[in-house]
Amino acid sequence: MSLIVQKFGGTSVADADRIRNVARIITETYRRGHSLVVVLSAQGDTTDDLIAKAAEINPHGSKREMDMLLSTGEQISCALCSMAIEAMGYPVVSLTGWQAGFQTDSAYGGARIKKIGTERVLAELDKKKIVIVTGFQGVNKYDDITTLGRGGSDTSAVALAAVLHADLCQIYTDVDGVYTADPRVVKGAKKLDEITYDEMMELATLGAQVLHNRSVEMAKRYHVKLEVLSSFSGQPGTKVKEVAKTMEKPYISGVAKDANIARLAVVGLQDRPGIAFQIFSALAKEKINVDIIIQSIGRHDTKDITFTVSRDDMDRAREVLMDMKDSLGFDHVDVTDEIAKVSIVGAGMINNPGVASRMFEAIYNAGINIHMIATSEIKVSVLVDKCDADMAVQAVHSRFFGE
Amino acid sequence: MSLIVQKFGGTSVADADRIRNVARIITETYRRGHSLVVVLSAQGDTTDDLIAKAAEINPHGSKREMDMLLSTGEQISCALCSMAIEAMGYPVVSLTGWQAGFQTDSAYGGARIKKIGTERVLAELDKKKIVIVTGFQGVNKYDDITTLGRGGSDTSAVALAAVLHADLCQIYTDVDGVYTADPRVVKGAKKLDEITYDEMMELATLGAQVLHNRSVEMAKRYHVKLEVLSSFSGQPGTKVKEVAKTMEKPYISGVAKDANIARLAVVGLQDRPGIAFQIFSALAKEKINVDIIIQSIGRHDTKDITFTVSRDDMDRAREVLMDMKDSLGFDHVDVTDEIAKVSIVGAGMINNPGVASRMFEAIYNAGINIHMIATSEIKVSVLVDKCDADMAVQAVHSRFFGE
Repeated sequence: MSLIVQKFGGTSVADADRIRNVARIITETYRRGHSLVVVLSAQGDTTDDLIAKAAEINPHGSKREMDMLLSTGEQISCALCSMAIEAMGYPVVSLTGWQAGFQTDSAYGGARIKKIGTERVLAELDKKKIVIVTGFQGVNKYDDITTLGRGGSDTSAVALAAVLHADLCQIYTDVDGVYTADPRVVKGAKKLDEITYDEMMELATLGAQVLHNRSVEMAKRYHVKLEVLSSFSGQPGTKVKEVAKTMEKPYISGVAKDANIARLAVVGLQDRPGIAFQIFSALAKEKINVDIIIQSIGRHDTKDITFTVSRDDMDRAREVLMDMKDSLGFDHVDVTDEIAKVSIVGAGMINNPGVASRMFEAIYNAGINIHMIATSEIKVSVLVDKCDADMAVQAVHSRFFGE
Repeated sequence: MSLIVQKFGGTSVADADRIRNVARIITETYRRGHSLVVVLSAQGDTTDDLIAKAAEINPHGSKREMDMLLSTGEQISCALCSMAIEAMGYPVVSLTGWQAGFQTDSAYGGARIKKIGTERVLAELDKKKIVIVTGFQGVNKYDDITTLGRGGSDTSAVALAAVLHADLCQIYTDVDGVYTADPRVVKGAKKLDEITYDEMMELATLGAQVLHNRSVEMAKRYHVKLEVLSSFSGQPGTKVKEVAKTMEKPYISGVAKDANIARLAVVGLQDRPGIAFQIFSALAKEKINVDIIIQSIGRHDTKDITFTVSRDDMDRAREVLMDMKDSLGFDHVDVTDEIAKVSIVGAGMINNPGVASRMFEAIYNAGINIHMIATSEIKVSVLVDKCDADMAVQAVHSRFFGE
């Protein structure tokens, strides 16, 4: 008899058949005697359809009205799923974000949860009802509807699990867990039974689209036990927790690729103090996130600063730099998006020196050139040409996991 | 500088172009210096689409979940219309039923408004915003979403106009006012400039589908000045008020036809007291509304009771009667739906005797047989064969209004 929070994504509730499938998973869990709160995303393309409708009328509509519009998507999927559960003969009630007590700040389109009032949800659980809650949304202090932005429904589920002190938060998706590498690309990619929050976060950042970082961060902070699993396969998924029991065995938990990046090199900078500070504070002011940074000595008492940003920020980052050309004094800026980042992640590598060199060796043996290197406690990233990225991932994965 | 409530129906906001058209009407009213609250229905077929989605999953879903589902329709149209108004550069805010303070009872699917808290709407009007409110919905005391049932958005608009003490409530629809008869059927049908609440209610009951009775009743009770007009033509519509200024001229305000009825005759009843009471209390218990009733002496100390009901209630009414056959003691029940009711409505007929006989004369001259007659202070109705109904309407209309 546990309290379980289950979350189902948009593909899991895309049509009537899939909603019935989800209703079956929910009612089976309920039948086993668990108290159950379920968080749903909007159906399949609903959100995109609503965005298209809005764009036709006003491509620059206010974010407040956009949230008013988009929040209907989850309300629809929750009502439909409740009806599917009613048809199976189980007691159920659906709740919108405001009904379920989700209070957020006023950052429409990307609001943060401030508080969840649990009275209503607990009252419904006391009545032995299955409680279906709209993900992705809440209300601000003005009673206006807000949405939580990307990964919002995962965050809704984890936040609910945290305030309800749930025993488990299951994130149902269309993949059946977290893999050592993208199974569509890498031969021999293996599903992990367990992974730590930190590893999961590094993998999410690196482009493994299983769980949004925001939800993992929250799960870590509030000690919410997560499980990522498929709503289609019926197989056990991957558990995300503080300490993974298999930590000592493989040094790394996964190999990830991020091809959605760009590299900018500011070449021929005058070698005087404060240059790096000037560049990166200007980029920060424009809300451009910088990832890997390398500073190297150039020719004739100059230096070069090279860094990577998200592909979407490439043009704006170049503009920021060019605006500073006179004040900074540099020769030119090299920009390319023909690169990709390949990374290994693993809590085990803290206590296992030599992991990085094994990675470099694998890439060298595959005849691939490394442009940049960055390391953290549980991660090693290298920059390679985009065309070499998949081969690099495969080589590194084989080196650590076999084929 | 007045406070005006405008309501637009589903066809008026069916697509992006029509929403822009509605936004133009709204912003033009606002530009003339009026404070403006707008009530919208769901777009075109949205409600039907949602009902179909629900039926695919559970044809007998609970009304609570159905209301949760259907209420999204107005939320979508309101958000989209607000964005259209934003695109035109005017200040606007959309509000759901609960945000706009609509408190209802818990009769999901057909809730009644209990109270409207106006704080939020008034605060937005103070900020000089155009306030867009979802029609058709509210919340009950449990904070659950309810819908108001048929004619709900009209009722929302009139109720808002009442509590806000609005100077005018404009109901925009796809016809440009109230006519002396259905202009698609009757030659020479004229648009009325004004009509009284009572006349409007009689016409609505009689099948002139312009305004739902519930909203007219409420408008009368709270002295809300109504105007029915087209969102497409840009022409003045018909004003609905307590006393219409043109009352003394035409005796009647309109001729209406209702073909959606059935007639039941209970033949050969024993002539003892309490028979009529037994029949009609049994029908009332089944929530079957009875319209015209005629009791006549039959042969051999028996009597016949004949009455009309809505076509939808015909079969159930017959069952109710047959269940009572033994206790009542009657010979048989005659049932037909091959009939129609033709009525004239007019506050002017109170002071003008002979209106009814002019109507009968017109029908007689057209060679049409009258089966039943019923009169009230401002209405005369006759029952004719369904196939004669349109001709009867035309004959009566020509008699009173010319061609």
